[in-house]
Amino acid sequence: MVVAIPPETKALSNEELQKMHAFWRACNYLAVGMIYLKDNPLLKEPLKPEHVKKRLLGHWGSSPGLSFIYVHLNRIIKKYDQSMVYVAGPGHGAPGILGPVYLEGTYSEVYPDKSEDTEGLKKFFKQFSFPGGIGSHCTPETPGSIHEGGELGYSLSHSFGIAFDNPETIVACVIGDGEAETGPLATAWHANKFLNPIRDGAVLPILHLNGYKIANPTILARISHEELESLFKGYGYKPYFVEGADPEYMHQAMAATLDTVITEIREIQQEARSTGVAKRPMWPMIVLRSPKGWTGPAAVDGHKTENFWRSHQVPLAGMHNNPEHLQMLESWLRSYKPEELFDENGTLVPELKDLAPTGNRRMGANPITNGGLLRRELRMPDFRNYAVDVPQPGKVESENTRPLGALLRDVMKYNMTNFRMFGPDETASNRLQAVYEVSKKTWMAEMFPEDLDGSELSTDGRVMEMLSEHTLLGCMEGYLLSGRHGFFHTYEAFAHVIDSMFNQHAKWLDISKREIPWRAPVSSWNVLLSSTVWRQDHNGFSHQDPGFVDLVTNKSAEVVRIYFPPDANCLLSVASHCLRSTDYTNIIVSDKQKHLQYLNMEEAIKHCTKGIGIWDWASNDDCGVEPDEPDVIMASCGDIPTKEALAATAILREEFPELKVRFINVVDLMTLQPETEHPHGLSNREFDTLFTPDKPVMFNFHGYPWLIHKLCYRRSNQERIHVRGYKEKGNINTPLELAINNQIDRFNLVIDVIDRVPSLGSRGAHVRERMKNAIIDSCSYAYEHGNDRDEITHWQWPY
Amino acid sequence: MVVAIPPETKALSNEELQKMHAFWRACNYLAVGMIYLKDNPLLKEPLKPEHVKKRLLGHWGSSPGLSFIYVHLNRIIKKYDQSMVYVAGPGHGAPGILGPVYLEGTYSEVYPDKSEDTEGLKKFFKQFSFPGGIGSHCTPETPGSIHEGGELGYSLSHSFGIAFDNPETIVACVIGDGEAETGPLATAWHANKFLNPIRDGAVLPILHLNGYKIANPTILARISHEELESLFKGYGYKPYFVEGADPEYMHQAMAATLDTVITEIREIQQEARSTGVAKRPMWPMIVLRSPKGWTGPAAVDGHKTENFWRSHQVPLAGMHNNPEHLQMLESWLRSYKPEELFDENGTLVPELKDLAPTGNRRMGANPITNGGLLRRELRMPDFRNYAVDVPQPGKVESENTRPLGALLRDVMKYNMTNFRMFGPDETASNRLQAVYEVSKKTWMAEMFPEDLDGSELSTDGRVMEMLSEHTLLGCMEGYLLSGRHGFFHTYEAFAHVIDSMFNQHAKWLDISKREIPWRAPVSSWNVLLSSTVWRQDHNGFSHQDPGFVDLVTNKSAEVVRIYFPPDANCLLSVASHCLRSTDYTNIIVSDKQKHLQYLNMEEAIKHCTKGIGIWDWASNDDCGVEPDEPDVIMASCGDIPTKEALAATAILREEFPELKVRFINVVDLMTLQPETEHPHGLSNREFDTLFTPDKPVMFNFHGYPWLIHKLCYRRSNQERIHVRGYKEKGNINTPLELAINNQIDRFNLVIDVIDRVPSLGSRGAHVRERMKNAIIDSCSYAYEHGNDRDEITHWQWPY
Repeated sequence: MVVAIPPETKALSNEELQKMHAFWRACNYLAVGMIYLKDNPLLKEPLKPEHVKKRLLGHWGSSPGLSFIYVHLNRIIKKYDQSMVYVAGPGHGAPGILGPVYLEGTYSEVYPDKSEDTEGLKKFFKQFSFPGGIGSHCTPETPGSIHEGGELGYSLSHSFGIAFDNPETIVACVIGDGEAETGPLATAWHANKFLNPIRDGAVLPILHLNGYKIANPTILARISHEELESLFKGYGYKPYFVEGADPEYMHQAMAATLDTVITEIREIQQEARSTGVAKRPMWPMIVLRSPKGWTGPAAVDGHKTENFWRSHQVPLAGMHNNPEHLQMLESWLRSYKPEELFDENGTLVPELKDLAPTGNRRMGANPITNGGLLRRELRMPDFRNYAVDVPQPGKVESENTRPLGALLRDVMKYNMTNFRMFGPDETASNRLQAVYEVSKKTWMAEMFPEDLDGSELSTDGRVMEMLSEHTLLGCMEGYLLSGRHGFFHTYEAFAHVIDSMFNQHAKWLDISKREIPWRAPVSSWNVLLSSTVWRQDHNGFSHQDPGFVDLVTNKSAEVVRIYFPPDANCLLSVASHCLRSTDYTNIIVSDKQKHLQYLNMEEAIKHCTKGIGIWDWASNDDCGVEPDEPDVIMASCGDIPTKEALAATAILREEFPELKVRFINVVDLMTLQPETEHPHGLSNREFDTLFTPDKPVMFNFHGYPWLIHKLCYRRSNQERIHVRGYKEKGNINTPLELAINNQIDRFNLVIDVIDRVPSLGSRGAHVRERMKNAIIDSCSYAYEHGNDRDEITHWQWPY
Repeated sequence: MVVAIPPETKALSNEELQKMHAFWRACNYLAVGMIYLKDNPLLKEPLKPEHVKKRLLGHWGSSPGLSFIYVHLNRIIKKYDQSMVYVAGPGHGAPGILGPVYLEGTYSEVYPDKSEDTEGLKKFFKQFSFPGGIGSHCTPETPGSIHEGGELGYSLSHSFGIAFDNPETIVACVIGDGEAETGPLATAWHANKFLNPIRDGAVLPILHLNGYKIANPTILARISHEELESLFKGYGYKPYFVEGADPEYMHQAMAATLDTVITEIREIQQEARSTGVAKRPMWPMIVLRSPKGWTGPAAVDGHKTENFWRSHQVPLAGMHNNPEHLQMLESWLRSYKPEELFDENGTLVPELKDLAPTGNRRMGANPITNGGLLRRELRMPDFRNYAVDVPQPGKVESENTRPLGALLRDVMKYNMTNFRMFGPDETASNRLQAVYEVSKKTWMAEMFPEDLDGSELSTDGRVMEMLSEHTLLGCMEGYLLSGRHGFFHTYEAFAHVIDSMFNQHAKWLDISKREIPWRAPVSSWNVLLSSTVWRQDHNGFSHQDPGFVDLVTNKSAEVVRIYFPPDANCLLSVASHCLRSTDYTNIIVSDKQKHLQYLNMEEAIKHCTKGIGIWDWASNDDCGVEPDEPDVIMASCGDIPTKEALAATAILREEFPELKVRFINVVDLMTLQPETEHPHGLSNREFDTLFTPDKPVMFNFHGYPWLIHKLCYRRSNQERIHVRGYKEKGNINTPLELAINNQIDRFNLVIDVIDRVPSLGSRGAHVRERMKNAIIDSCSYAYEHGNDRDEITHWQWPY
């Protein structure tokens, strides 16, 4: 079934072959030029040390293979008038991408000073991996890139995300054989079980088997052909092999293979689209086995270099003190015959320029890769329609995430071509299953009759569930960056699985916003963390980790937003805001279980718009004349800590009617930072108005307590801010016992206040003792009965 | 080549079959009992609501399959007197493991109150997923477990780590088909390219294809048999299929398959060990396709349950209000015929007990799974022997990590059976390649002749390199937990890939130390972060992230240690300490490139032992009489920030000779925390002695600056502590420009001091202006030349 193209196949005429080879020579010339040259870009004079950069950086090894593919895809684009996106997994081989992007003219359009002439070429070379210039990966500065490829592992999931709902597009995803060893990549192959040939475009994976990483062979290059072929058949693909080193043969083989493969993709799509039957085909993929550092120095100083790991980065160095190496570099550069490729002005000769597509068909200019250009606003229902009725604060219970599910259902309904949801197997567990009324889970693998009873599967579903946060999030990122909208939800503790993906995406957005005006804003990266720490009392210690937000606060204030809605209406308000926003990473933390409701919709909107505020109904510091003067401030952030803080406030008001307690709730965590650090930050005056400059503050927080200190350390008298939060004290507990162990519970909070308000005197001491007993009693009750007392579980605000 | 065992095969006599089936019934009875019962454990009376737990927790779905495998492995252990370790990937199916561990007697030995009688059984049932009891995963409390299986993805890499250097052991690794979808698991199959049949034991992967996750089918259960078989052949295995639902057939098939597979493993090993030729075989693996919730209720309330996702957790609920369900539960329990399995005292009948192995052959008692028992101290060379000669502080340069490489080489040499190194393709890049003199990189895939020129591969190498941090770290964790020693090094920015693995391991250690006295201490989890943020000026923004340590500081002080050695001798001292320690996660941050050296070995030892200290040679606040009274404190933590802080100090001393500067360096980050929070923490008195209670402190930090505030927020007048660190301001820079953008450079530090010491007056203003100009000048020089000025790059301490 799987065939290599026979060597006698001639897909290209001799003229085509020569021209394509010449275009590729031009690409390789540019790649070497970028790495080495800061002057004399077209070798109009003999190469001298002063033409060479002092610090040599970049990855030569995979560059020629990357541009080889680019040149061949260009032919396909023109032949079939095909919309094509190029994702370069080995993004550190940026010279192999930047070269053809420059030659097709896109680069000079975006960066006019890198013009298509000698002067522009000189700047183009010099800027590469040079201070003040551009990076050596396919960074956001690279036209046509939505995938930097600095950290490896996500090229394939990004590609599937681009292909979703882009039926006319083929995403050519080049996967390095180094990257192929990563876990995220190894499972992303299975994303083909979520790609519908009717509705979606195609992903064409091209495994670039050039054999080596920095200093090692790659695993996939050192297993038998049979194993390699089996592996990809096992992943559900039909692999085609293009293997060799001779350029002439390789051009013919690649061209023939691409013709075959593109025809196959089109046939698959046509069959599905004409019959309306979406089946999972064995999608074709290509294994391109070509030498690392192809066309570069065969050996350097007696060591094999081409087709070996020694050509991974900069194969020739020491140009300033080693005339022999300088000579080798010049010969290497001249081997591409630049004089045949560029005219007197340093412009690519027209018969080669003709090989590149034009306009938006150029891969560097495909608007899909600057997705903000294509982005349409989400059609949003009015989130007020999903409100939970809250006649009085703190009296009724409701599952916080369920109304969000209804909102997301209607967002889905109104945006059935450009909105998707992603989550690892937990949409229903997180109470978001209303969405299935409108669109089910995509499933292109086998279905069984019993699936009709609740599995909620469909070939045209728009919810993606797979037990790989990496694959899901990669798909969502590809989807967002190509101009669509998405919503991801996951288990709070295991959000750390995608820490590094968050970092990379936040950095991409940050640099795009700050430094790349031509990149249009894209939809925000919206993540709901549910199954949160305080309801992991039953799963125990390993499932308790609220630290994802700690990581998030390290990234630029330009792109980071964190929300802790205390109840269902606040969650609706926050989520609706996040869904409409652009260029942020929005993290929303909300538990899925039943919780007390505090604010009706209008109050919730006001509260969430400010992000922080006094809850008058819970406070008793209103003395009738301004300014109020509380004795103590009880602050809370997060659904469960808010309930405990309110319960503590109720006890305090009951026990000490004269004590003036102000209750503050924080929805938008970044309000705590100074306004100089974050655009949502309160000014010091605003902060002091809320928290007073000097009264004791008990801050009951959802996450690790020191995060609040990290955000507040510049606030006045911050040592009076006493924070409680999760401090790694958990095992198999009840919710209350878990709270007690970490001291965020009502009883400990009352003790905290008593310890900080000496005026409570002996009554205080007495109540303190009762709180201690309540703690002991609660725990022994739990050990006996397996649950908390009903009056704790179903506690209501008593006023 | 790949065969299912034909149905007519009879590996078991009828008596064996009946007994094994009875043992399995006992396991299943216990699993259901754990989930449901708190009383009446042997159904001596009719089941009443009060016998049933109020809150029903646990995962029934995979439990019967897990215990089915356990029972069959027991037979193999006895038949071949085989050392066997059981790793339960679907660790949430703990009832399927706890049952047989109890029945074999291990559980009662470790926990005598859970005795092998009715009273013990009652406690055993009640404690499961009950407040104050044990978790519903294979937590550290579970005898025989080194893999909790709460977060999914690492069972297979943990298993390979156990098998390394354990030639007589077979690690049976059960992989859930949910877990199989994760990236870390999907690539861990390739770890067979690092397993040497002569030196190492075997891993027997058993893919438990029971078809469903929480609410979804699994991918691998819904692809064709041909694809599934191809996938595992592609991964390099020989898959055997055991598929069905009829217990009698399945017992025979599993027994026959295990006989075949064990024989094959032994033949592979014998062939390799007798010939001395280590080749990579196609290791056998098993696909066990059995119903989810096997033997449980076929349907509940009209919905298919057995062999469907509805049996994932607790298939029957509402026992207290639903007499029909209560009746179903009783029938279900009685279907296992407990009266035939347990005697009057509630003890397993002797003819069944006989099926279990005895002593340390019991999988719950295999000492490998309490590796601290087997751990031998590392034979350590004297790290002083690797010292860099430092005649004077701040005059000579050296690569900080290279002497560590020499130390690690000799650690390897002295410990050639129980020490291994792990890193993704960067041992040489991180300058640790001296280790290859003693042991090369393990490589069981193909080798080419050119590999002899520097690839450093060998079938018996003890360094593991693969481009999967997940697989490497998983292997190291398995290796450590089974009683050996390891060292992992990785790229600082991409350490976030393994954030979640760090969390899980730290939690495992923490709970083992605090709550499980029978677990002996294991070697520490030692991680070197290199290629650090301040030398990623050339790779740019995506490679700049020093936040791994932020994550680490969230975990318990019991298990967390973080070191920033400023130079090579300090790194040696710190690393030697870490290698000898137990039960910690040690994170060492050190760049690999050339840096100034400050301390000779004796000074380094003293400094690292204290963890923080004044560098007298860099300070000029010694007034001859105690106490010294500095005007300003310059503090540093990290190699590059230390150099810049020293350079700033030199400028200050040159420009303002009367200004008294105290220079403090921090090696052990946790000294900054109060002693009440961390055992390494300074008391407030010690802190004030070093930092004074009130003088301005400029703290130049390697990581995100707010981390220092997070650690120091309780210190006196902490608002005077002015921290500089990485704040997400980078692109393609020179080292100095990157430092400048983030204001950790010498010039900005001088400005910081001038701004905080008003007494410097107009001279200060003048110097401030010069610093500003130096900043502008440095950046324009970099843009022009591509590098920093030589006098910056090769700056030395001038005194």
